[in-house]
Amino acid sequence: MNDSVLNDSVLSEITGPHRYRNAEAMLAHGERVWLRAAESGLLNIQVDHESNDRLIVRETGHEFSLLCSCSYLGLNHHPKIIEGAVSALRKAGTTGLSIAEIRVRLNLLVELEESLRDLYGAPALPGVSCSVLTAGILPLVASGHIGGGGPRVMVFDRFCHFSMAYIKPICGDESLVLSCPHNDLNYLEDICKKYPRVAYVADGAYSMGGRTALEGLLELQNRYGLFLYFDDSHALSIEGPRGEGYVRSNIEMNPLTLIVGSLAKGFGASGGVAMLGSEKDFQFLYRNAGPVTWSQNMDVPAIGACLASADLHRTPELGQLQAKLRHNIDVFDQRFPTRFSGNGLPIRLIEVGDEDLAVRLSEQLFRAGYYCSAVFFPIVARGAAGVRVMLRADFAPERLDNFCDVVESLMVSA
Amino acid sequence: MNDSVLNDSVLSEITGPHRYRNAEAMLAHGERVWLRAAESGLLNIQVDHESNDRLIVRETGHEFSLLCSCSYLGLNHHPKIIEGAVSALRKAGTTGLSIAEIRVRLNLLVELEESLRDLYGAPALPGVSCSVLTAGILPLVASGHIGGGGPRVMVFDRFCHFSMAYIKPICGDESLVLSCPHNDLNYLEDICKKYPRVAYVADGAYSMGGRTALEGLLELQNRYGLFLYFDDSHALSIEGPRGEGYVRSNIEMNPLTLIVGSLAKGFGASGGVAMLGSEKDFQFLYRNAGPVTWSQNMDVPAIGACLASADLHRTPELGQLQAKLRHNIDVFDQRFPTRFSGNGLPIRLIEVGDEDLAVRLSEQLFRAGYYCSAVFFPIVARGAAGVRVMLRADFAPERLDNFCDVVESLMVSA
Repeated sequence: MNDSVLNDSVLSEITGPHRYRNAEAMLAHGERVWLRAAESGLLNIQVDHESNDRLIVRETGHEFSLLCSCSYLGLNHHPKIIEGAVSALRKAGTTGLSIAEIRVRLNLLVELEESLRDLYGAPALPGVSCSVLTAGILPLVASGHIGGGGPRVMVFDRFCHFSMAYIKPICGDESLVLSCPHNDLNYLEDICKKYPRVAYVADGAYSMGGRTALEGLLELQNRYGLFLYFDDSHALSIEGPRGEGYVRSNIEMNPLTLIVGSLAKGFGASGGVAMLGSEKDFQFLYRNAGPVTWSQNMDVPAIGACLASADLHRTPELGQLQAKLRHNIDVFDQRFPTRFSGNGLPIRLIEVGDEDLAVRLSEQLFRAGYYCSAVFFPIVARGAAGVRVMLRADFAPERLDNFCDVVESLMVSA
Repeated sequence: MNDSVLNDSVLSEITGPHRYRNAEAMLAHGERVWLRAAESGLLNIQVDHESNDRLIVRETGHEFSLLCSCSYLGLNHHPKIIEGAVSALRKAGTTGLSIAEIRVRLNLLVELEESLRDLYGAPALPGVSCSVLTAGILPLVASGHIGGGGPRVMVFDRFCHFSMAYIKPICGDESLVLSCPHNDLNYLEDICKKYPRVAYVADGAYSMGGRTALEGLLELQNRYGLFLYFDDSHALSIEGPRGEGYVRSNIEMNPLTLIVGSLAKGFGASGGVAMLGSEKDFQFLYRNAGPVTWSQNMDVPAIGACLASADLHRTPELGQLQAKLRHNIDVFDQRFPTRFSGNGLPIRLIEVGDEDLAVRLSEQLFRAGYYCSAVFFPIVARGAAGVRVMLRADFAPERLDNFCDVVESLMVSA
């Protein structure tokens, strides 16, 4: 059979229901703008690394600062973390055992589990990335095996990170999946009133700025037994006395709360971690959480880097780096007031509205030595395009001043 | 609302359709046997590494060989690969940039892309793991954005690895998803006759032994334009003059074929790779393949380990290791004829049928110094439990002889 004899009924039989995703619709818009960014030289930039403020394009010699790195504390190039990876490799003498961790695992990984458990005050499950943890765990929240009691209505905040929204269809095979307007507690409470078991899926700190409505959510948890699933990747390490992140440093853990976070952002290493609300979930997830259970988990250098970073999180250096970051955020907020000014998080959006304008601003900044990504639908809502600025603790004050001057002059001339 | 007032209609509204998965049904069986293995001391074994044949339980001093590692060539502890990871860390001075690779990426990663492209004779997309590549790519095969022409009926081989079956619900939101009896070409051809665009999803070498029906599949591809998606993780490095794996070393790439593989098994490093059939898919997937596009890709030590391993794949040492592995497989096959004897792959199942017997055999072998995993439903069919033996090139001949003797004596006494 070929396309020319395709009739509508065959086509509709082939096409999925598009309940949670529609690649064609996403790409129709997204690809156009990606390609526009590519034409402007803002994609596929290939660099050597001297520091986060000195990336070098080998062919042209062009040097620039990275202002869209998630390494908010600059720990990605901390000598202790690099040496942690090296010494783990030397000590273990292997990249990894290439077997499911639930069967046999290195004491080095066990050390990391214990170090993270101590750091976060909760059973801590490591994973090869934060999104892999989410892919493994969320469907078991939907089925009720984490949280208990049977299938649970899964309510995804409309702004929650792609890594969680991506898993909606898998959750949807286990239970009812709904979307919730961003931070809309009334909407969420109505769902809690209607259904006996509900889970809410959200970012702790959102990748486009802003926070989850934590206080109200805890009230709903108390009142209705609402399960809370947070990805707090963008606040991990940069908030909390031990870098526990926004959510963990403001709540007590309980069996109806689970927090995942990336260890490749503020934490400066690789992989991800799930802070669990229940001791028995730790072994259960190691056995049953899909991709978490297959044979590839964190490799030895990643474990070593994480161990070194966790140690560093217990020293006064963490607080010093957090303070430097906060200072940079404050300076930026004074120069460019945005709706998130003063919230203490490092992600800022300089909104320009039009997608082409956003790409042009990003292009001009890059020429001036600063790479900030242009963001647009579907990363932000249509018509809300802009340039995303991600501040770092290791961004030198004089360089920050210069950056702000450059942005200002470009905005005036636009 | 609480459970006591739950009526059937609310419960059925909450519960998902269970089209592709049912955690409750899987766990009801699987957990019982996992826990049986745990009671026998076969789970959560925590070790120090001296070599793949000398893992040491610190508390007891018990030493054993790992016979369920996927490091088939023993490359996980090859000094050149360890040093590759170390020197990449030293050279780059960072664990990673913590930004989406499509925007800015290290020349080191570009070098790896080019090295793998050369090795496999195809555009090669790196990923943080093989299953992450599958999670990102398969839904775009379903939607027709890889392979072209519009939505495609996705036919999953019933034995294909969990990492692919796991993505069924996501694919199912884009297109019709079907299952196919293992290696059943007639069944598959009927589907090709019924629908205009079909993709078949399979392992190249199966994780329980055996191969895909490659020749017949290529005929179906020629005749019907069948898209072929293979995970060849269990043959990568161990077959082909440059370790291209079973599938790649037996086919020419074309836009209707895509092969993914783990770089953490035979390859001895970390991460995964997708060999693409079309040049334009490379950038397209970097932009749009879900988890591949987010900010965590391969970290610097993983890139370094992979670069070193890729170099090693170009030396005569690869052939020597492949030959050693083949010799070990032949020796085992002579002692324990199984239905896969002579197929050259390193995975063998000593079938005992009963789950408890399988666990007991695994337990006795472990005491004798050999860890082979007991496998049972849902990893294999019900009633087909056994002990999985995974042979390695670095398993010394005298040790292999001893292992075979031990198995034999235990089988006789059982």
